[in-house]
Amino acid sequence: MTEPGHRMRTEIAQQPVIVEQIARERQEIAHVAAHVNSISPRFVLIAARGTSDHAALYLKYLIEVALRLPCGLASPSTTTVYGARPDFTDVLWVAVSQSGQSPDLVEATAAAQRAGALTVAMTNNPGSALDASAALSVAIKAGQEAAVAAIKTYTATLLALWLLVDFWRDRDGSACLGLSDAVAQVVDDDRILQVADRLRFADGLVVTGRGYSYPTAREGALKLMETAYLSAHAFSGADLLHGPLALVSPERPVIAVIPPGAAGRAMIPVLERLNERGSEVVTIGSNPGNNRAAGMVLPAVLDELSPIVEVVPLQRLAHSMAIARRVDPDAPRGLAKVTHNMTHADVHRRTADSLWAGT
Amino acid sequence: MTEPGHRMRTEIAQQPVIVEQIARERQEIAHVAAHVNSISPRFVLIAARGTSDHAALYLKYLIEVALRLPCGLASPSTTTVYGARPDFTDVLWVAVSQSGQSPDLVEATAAAQRAGALTVAMTNNPGSALDASAALSVAIKAGQEAAVAAIKTYTATLLALWLLVDFWRDRDGSACLGLSDAVAQVVDDDRILQVADRLRFADGLVVTGRGYSYPTAREGALKLMETAYLSAHAFSGADLLHGPLALVSPERPVIAVIPPGAAGRAMIPVLERLNERGSEVVTIGSNPGNNRAAGMVLPAVLDELSPIVEVVPLQRLAHSMAIARRVDPDAPRGLAKVTHNMTHADVHRRTADSLWAGT
Repeated sequence: MTEPGHRMRTEIAQQPVIVEQIARERQEIAHVAAHVNSISPRFVLIAARGTSDHAALYLKYLIEVALRLPCGLASPSTTTVYGARPDFTDVLWVAVSQSGQSPDLVEATAAAQRAGALTVAMTNNPGSALDASAALSVAIKAGQEAAVAAIKTYTATLLALWLLVDFWRDRDGSACLGLSDAVAQVVDDDRILQVADRLRFADGLVVTGRGYSYPTAREGALKLMETAYLSAHAFSGADLLHGPLALVSPERPVIAVIPPGAAGRAMIPVLERLNERGSEVVTIGSNPGNNRAAGMVLPAVLDELSPIVEVVPLQRLAHSMAIARRVDPDAPRGLAKVTHNMTHADVHRRTADSLWAGT
Repeated sequence: MTEPGHRMRTEIAQQPVIVEQIARERQEIAHVAAHVNSISPRFVLIAARGTSDHAALYLKYLIEVALRLPCGLASPSTTTVYGARPDFTDVLWVAVSQSGQSPDLVEATAAAQRAGALTVAMTNNPGSALDASAALSVAIKAGQEAAVAAIKTYTATLLALWLLVDFWRDRDGSACLGLSDAVAQVVDDDRILQVADRLRFADGLVVTGRGYSYPTAREGALKLMETAYLSAHAFSGADLLHGPLALVSPERPVIAVIPPGAAGRAMIPVLERLNERGSEVVTIGSNPGNNRAAGMVLPAVLDELSPIVEVVPLQRLAHSMAIARRVDPDAPRGLAKVTHNMTHADVHRRTADSLWAGT
């Protein structure tokens, strides 16, 4: 009998080694990128669900900023539920899924291929149905997953996506060498336990971020929801100061993920407004305005790669808060049947295929 | 001194008349649609924030299903924070904003125009900065807004967007005649008060929907958060059954928005799974599987127009729950300074412009 959360903790700890290995074997992604580059797509659509959807959002920012291409997150249901038959000439379609088994992604990817898109599947399960439905494949290489909540597959996916973009823009991916050291440092940084302790009795949380850190805020909130059953709302810094600010109260603190660079500086007025309201704020990342909020400054890495570092304290926070709340993050109630021998795919098959067909 | 929530209630009640008027004056949108049609855009990007972001998501489904075009929701921050200079040849850019004043939307729209896109602004404030930044404009025509939370502007925006698409596909918009009767019926349907009463002491809520009803679920959750301070999480039916299902508990009931047609049928397995778990579920919309969940069946309208009807009970629910919780939905704490004389735009100006620059 292992202790509660053992698998989740193990996969958090494996991340530096996985990041290191993906960086070392990065050339395997170069040929896919070369193929993508050779057809010069005009528009990119990304299809994903759950945690992978946050990786997709990260890719969207990268593509818009680094490749200057218009990009959208696909709504698989428009093909799988509504039967739309779109025209995807000049479109690059990227489908991201750890298991590579979700029937709706497989179906939507096959439909995208028929509609004229160049399709790329990115999965942690080489030879999966999703790989088979796409013209090109990228392996996530996170290794066998034992934790129920996606942990190491998330950071591995982010890095694989970054490498795809970096090769696509005719670079060599070497800017990610050394990233694993930063990840290792964050994995071992126990300051997050003090944060967990401080937030222990919060009614719920708001997680906010901007730019490259907005997907991190979303992923952190999802981890807190699915493993610790905490009501964690994620908002972009820009959206938070509209209506959702009403949710912030002394009982509902804010975790602000502050990226390096321009997006981090753009969080300063968000922090100022939260301070004005006397909100309890914990910052994770950088500290651009030298603000008064308590927080964890993380090792500096390239702006584009910072999400791979920033998500780790949030994974640890979710783990710690689950344990503190007497919940086993390796057996969350929503996915209690997904354990040792069952994959997400098995659970999918338990219900009608149509169930998974689209947002 | 008016009673708490008076403005919000008034604007909920105005919706049938506004819908009727927009339908009657729909020809004004036809010439914009003709212009869009004449340049045959290949891709569509939609830029919006907050409530308008939910209208944008509705438009995305419409464009993908009815017009067969790839479509994405823009991330304004990639231009306004990261300074990306994208290539938007053949792109239609639609910016949606009630006030038409958000600096980030104005800036991103001007940048989209320079990057080669055809730009359309849709605002409830003709002559706004956003209108000025775009090549074409559509007026939302919801009338002066007094409520703090967007109510009538939301349904008016949805209808204006639907009309834009309907003319664009060479129809005449007449399918929305009669819609106002359905809206009037729902405005007067007091069954929602029983729902409010039943959910009165819930810790929080989960709102779910699929296809055209997914934006409705998001908008309903936002209204509950910003006016009643309820922790309301929105998930697509497909995503809910992944990790977020862990959030559903006896203390956290589910509101399921069930559209007519295919997307409604695709909700049946979601309802079944929730029933299996003994979840408390309230359905709003249609009742495809004749399931056991308590719910409100709404007047049947065209699939594409159903979000304009379905959101009304959620607006009323937010209003009732705010009042029951002794909160004035006309003066929410997050936006307390936005009252009679101040618009959202004024609040925007109170903070640094950069604040609003992007997700």
